[in-house]
Amino acid sequence: MDWSWIALASSVASLLVGGYLYLWVRRQENPSARMHEISHAIETGATAYMRRLYMALACVAAVVGILVLLGFGIKVAGAYLFGSLCSALAGFFGMSVALRANSRTAWAAQRGLPAAFAVAFYGGGVMGMSVVGMALLGMSALYILFRDPQIVLGFSFGASSLALLAKAGGGIYTKTADIGADLVGKVELSIPEDDPRNPAVIADNVGDNVGDVAGMGADIFDSYVASVVAVMILGASLFAGKLEYVALPLMLAAAGIWASLFGMVLMRIGVRENPGRALNMGTVITCVIFAGLALGVIRLMGINPGAFYATLAGLVVGVVIGFTSDVFTSEQWGIVQRTAEASKTGPAINILTGFSYGLISILPSIVGICLATLVSWYAAQHFGLPGVYGVSLSAVGMLAVTGMVVSADAYGPIVDNAKGIAEQSGLSREVIDTADRLDAAGNTAKAITKGFAIAAAGLTVLALFAAYAETVDLQALDLLHPHVIVGIFLGAVMPPLFSALTILSVSRNAFAMVNEVRRQFREIPGLLEGLAKPDYARCVDIAAQGALKELILPGTLALVTPVAVALLFGREALGGLLAGSIFTGLIFALFMANSGGLWDNAKKYIEAGSCGGEGSEAHKAAVVGDTVGDPFKDTAGPSLNTLIAVMSLVAVLIAPLLVGRSLLGS
Amino acid sequence: MDWSWIALASSVASLLVGGYLYLWVRRQENPSARMHEISHAIETGATAYMRRLYMALACVAAVVGILVLLGFGIKVAGAYLFGSLCSALAGFFGMSVALRANSRTAWAAQRGLPAAFAVAFYGGGVMGMSVVGMALLGMSALYILFRDPQIVLGFSFGASSLALLAKAGGGIYTKTADIGADLVGKVELSIPEDDPRNPAVIADNVGDNVGDVAGMGADIFDSYVASVVAVMILGASLFAGKLEYVALPLMLAAAGIWASLFGMVLMRIGVRENPGRALNMGTVITCVIFAGLALGVIRLMGINPGAFYATLAGLVVGVVIGFTSDVFTSEQWGIVQRTAEASKTGPAINILTGFSYGLISILPSIVGICLATLVSWYAAQHFGLPGVYGVSLSAVGMLAVTGMVVSADAYGPIVDNAKGIAEQSGLSREVIDTADRLDAAGNTAKAITKGFAIAAAGLTVLALFAAYAETVDLQALDLLHPHVIVGIFLGAVMPPLFSALTILSVSRNAFAMVNEVRRQFREIPGLLEGLAKPDYARCVDIAAQGALKELILPGTLALVTPVAVALLFGREALGGLLAGSIFTGLIFALFMANSGGLWDNAKKYIEAGSCGGEGSEAHKAAVVGDTVGDPFKDTAGPSLNTLIAVMSLVAVLIAPLLVGRSLLGS
Repeated sequence: MDWSWIALASSVASLLVGGYLYLWVRRQENPSARMHEISHAIETGATAYMRRLYMALACVAAVVGILVLLGFGIKVAGAYLFGSLCSALAGFFGMSVALRANSRTAWAAQRGLPAAFAVAFYGGGVMGMSVVGMALLGMSALYILFRDPQIVLGFSFGASSLALLAKAGGGIYTKTADIGADLVGKVELSIPEDDPRNPAVIADNVGDNVGDVAGMGADIFDSYVASVVAVMILGASLFAGKLEYVALPLMLAAAGIWASLFGMVLMRIGVRENPGRALNMGTVITCVIFAGLALGVIRLMGINPGAFYATLAGLVVGVVIGFTSDVFTSEQWGIVQRTAEASKTGPAINILTGFSYGLISILPSIVGICLATLVSWYAAQHFGLPGVYGVSLSAVGMLAVTGMVVSADAYGPIVDNAKGIAEQSGLSREVIDTADRLDAAGNTAKAITKGFAIAAAGLTVLALFAAYAETVDLQALDLLHPHVIVGIFLGAVMPPLFSALTILSVSRNAFAMVNEVRRQFREIPGLLEGLAKPDYARCVDIAAQGALKELILPGTLALVTPVAVALLFGREALGGLLAGSIFTGLIFALFMANSGGLWDNAKKYIEAGSCGGEGSEAHKAAVVGDTVGDPFKDTAGPSLNTLIAVMSLVAVLIAPLLVGRSLLGS
Repeated sequence: MDWSWIALASSVASLLVGGYLYLWVRRQENPSARMHEISHAIETGATAYMRRLYMALACVAAVVGILVLLGFGIKVAGAYLFGSLCSALAGFFGMSVALRANSRTAWAAQRGLPAAFAVAFYGGGVMGMSVVGMALLGMSALYILFRDPQIVLGFSFGASSLALLAKAGGGIYTKTADIGADLVGKVELSIPEDDPRNPAVIADNVGDNVGDVAGMGADIFDSYVASVVAVMILGASLFAGKLEYVALPLMLAAAGIWASLFGMVLMRIGVRENPGRALNMGTVITCVIFAGLALGVIRLMGINPGAFYATLAGLVVGVVIGFTSDVFTSEQWGIVQRTAEASKTGPAINILTGFSYGLISILPSIVGICLATLVSWYAAQHFGLPGVYGVSLSAVGMLAVTGMVVSADAYGPIVDNAKGIAEQSGLSREVIDTADRLDAAGNTAKAITKGFAIAAAGLTVLALFAAYAETVDLQALDLLHPHVIVGIFLGAVMPPLFSALTILSVSRNAFAMVNEVRRQFREIPGLLEGLAKPDYARCVDIAAQGALKELILPGTLALVTPVAVALLFGREALGGLLAGSIFTGLIFALFMANSGGLWDNAKKYIEAGSCGGEGSEAHKAAVVGDTVGDPFKDTAGPSLNTLIAVMSLVAVLIAPLLVGRSLLGS
């Protein structure tokens, strides 16, 4: 029985549902001319940025594609381009619908919470279903055509290099616009957030879409594909001839798609009371259904039951990590409250407190990843499977529910935009309150997704490391050999270096943006009084140009370093490089995502009336923390997943060429 | 020929010179009653803290000593206590003289720069000579008595566990006092730094001594001993019967002592022009002399010449790393100036810029450590020595000039205190300017020492790792095994966790201090007008009590984690724990030391008149950065060296017991 056709069929089903939701959202009413105008401005800005981004990506894809062609032949190069294309298409679908769903959600909010929730969530669902649909479509089609995991690896590399640019570029864009809009608007002129007089407001709204929708989609697309490919490569190498162990991850992904579809259908119950709870319940239901389907799939395919427990370990730990990251970042818990309290002593103590709790927040997620590793390894071994295969499967188990997780995540920026549009177009207080409640639920979903994405990336890169080690036949790393020491040190330095470069890009870019906004308020007469319109397009342009220019150095570093280390110091050193980058990459990613969320919510907690409330000294201190945390959580932190995935994929890709070659000997 | 007697004789010479300098400093004039009073207050506070610290250390030493006795017998336990005692004595001598040299330096400053420089530098020299003297005395005496490196290892463990408490405790103390004094004094009441009306001012001055003199001394004592012991253990294991390879590190340390003595004698030339340059020239001269002596020693002992090149590699890289850390932290270079420039956009951008450059500053030092590793490995191998022996020797080469480096470093807090005393006792503007010039030179020396100490600790823990691997016969780490993955992950989390705990301790403690200072200004009538005296002792008490109480959790973590991981997951996992802690430990230590220095000097650059000067918005923003950087550079950052050294020493110590034992199997 050829299982991969079932995977292909499931991916088509996913895309059909996505297409249906897309049409459904477009059919929703949007009669307000004012709202249409704002929405159109955001759309124009986003489309302009996406056009630039895709042009830049096309250049990168052409250059890297030629290198891949020369090194690995036409099939892998074709798969590489196909991977970039599929990821770009998924991002494009998701963003187009998000750009249309925002004003429609705002309009629907006049009919109450459930109606607005449906528009926003189904809008997000387009992103969720396109990501898993395009990813599984590409992988299963390539596997059916060539029956060679190495070619599917080319697909994964394509998706991953696109994700690096989309995620880091989107992150720089969104924070440039956000900081630029806030520093002049809120701080200097004391006009509200999302005020239409602020020239950077459209760039800011565009940023939410390109950073959070397109960027996050590309990021999870990348981890999702990489985890499946790693298991395929390990399966082909460890179980010679038993093709069901190669097809298993494709089938688990298919099971995840069906579970997400059922989860979406069952979710709307209870929305009226609490949209956040509905989103969480949707995730839990999806997980339960997925566990049942996975058990069925593994039985049907006649696969060792150890595979089921390994998958389950990843699934459970992924959900638990997602929810615990809530403890560090939600204002319902003591940590955010204590950070808010510390703000009373000024900005320095706010920074120090958030910084420290951010560092502590690493611990639970790392312990979770360790548990998933231990349990999946021993579960696999107990039933006679190789332990590494179990660990790799746990990554697939964690990522199988991606369809649901991405849907819930893409919901966030839609309701965030909807709230902004409702405010800018002067809808009633009641409608804005509804939008606010939807937005609060979105923030929680976003925090959970970030923890989930980082943990999943962690297990995925461990799986890729295993695939690399298997391919170059690396049994163990000799940590006393200087080449390995050099490899680990350089690998460990990469994530902090990459973070520093992207953060500096944001401050450089934000500086240019602040100057432009100040210039417009100075030179356009009547702007502050609301009598003249600002030049939105100029701000959108500054954010977009800067973001792409700033990507050149970090992007090149990510692609070139693994190759250079392999050429100079050999395959053991490259193994060290991967190991080093994985460990510090996860640590910095978790630290930055959580501390950023923590500062953000400490500020919101004060704004809600605690510790002196808005305008107090504590609030000013918390705003400083929030601004520091912004590029942590939305630029540097989330790009690190992709950085370590790209480096690992480059390593696995060049692995077959490496055996016994290096300048200084291995 | 028994070389270890020469080492013992050199250590005695070092202590004699230290003793002579001690008496010389005490003989200097100090006739001013006002200065005597201030100096006496600092001395009383410091002595009170040291008494508390040594009491706490005695308890820890008793508990750990009993455990060592039960596990390793009476000889190792005795060596453990002896190690704690020698390190404590070195710290005690160094601090007593520093506490006397400060007012004498201020008085001598009336006779001009060279006279004051001599008092301060010879005062620092007592610390430098006691550290190397006590360390080499202990090691060579134990080696002559027992001829067993494992017993010298006990000595090293004793020194190291004392250093952890002295360094982290001193770091918490000093920053509690500093932040407490600044937040109320400078920020709220706008009275100058070091103003005698501020109740926390004496605690602040005490902090400079207990943190920077006693803490840094214990820290480098620890690395110095550990690097020598690691080479002794490797030498005994790799060169069966060739005892000169075991004695070599002792002889190199002896050569370093003589080089430092010559360097100190030759240094005073050119002081009148530029004290900073004189300090640097002293270091360079010491290094050149040491290189010559090391070559002679290695020839005389009939040792393979590869050992010389390995030693030289460490020495050169150590000096280069020390000086390059200057580029990131000195206001003469673009990075500090750009951070100051960024402060104009507010505190958040100041923080983000300093944070990013701090992360980038990791790179040169890590590249330096990689180069030292590569060169010393290949130099050793080229001449037929085992590569790991070469790498371990490079650590000794780097640390051999410790006598000189610690002298230059201990000079810093003496002149810092002297400046404070000159201001508080109302000496003339000219004298204060002289003290200021001396102080500026001290800051550069301090930055260089920090870079040097971290790099040296890096190579030392690599050497300890090699000694561990040699003892438990660990050829390579299987990074695909879950126990190793768990070990590395937990190891990698330890340094950020430890940093977070110590920083939180500082903010908790500083909060208590701020409340006390506010209370005194509120309740003591006439204090602000200078009519009444504040209760200095109460502030000293708060800082001291808090610092020691806060140490319990991080200290226990450092000692217990290696043992727990070894018991649960076996020797491979413990190897992983060490590797993980070494890599992230160095990264966080470098990041924190350099970003802290960077923020500090960006503030000073603005205070010197750039970017709007004192009182401008940019200055306020830079003060926030400086306050954030304070616990980075003086509490968390410098404690991380000691953390990884303690964990590595625990591992080497328990290594012989580990072979083949663990709960989950290895």
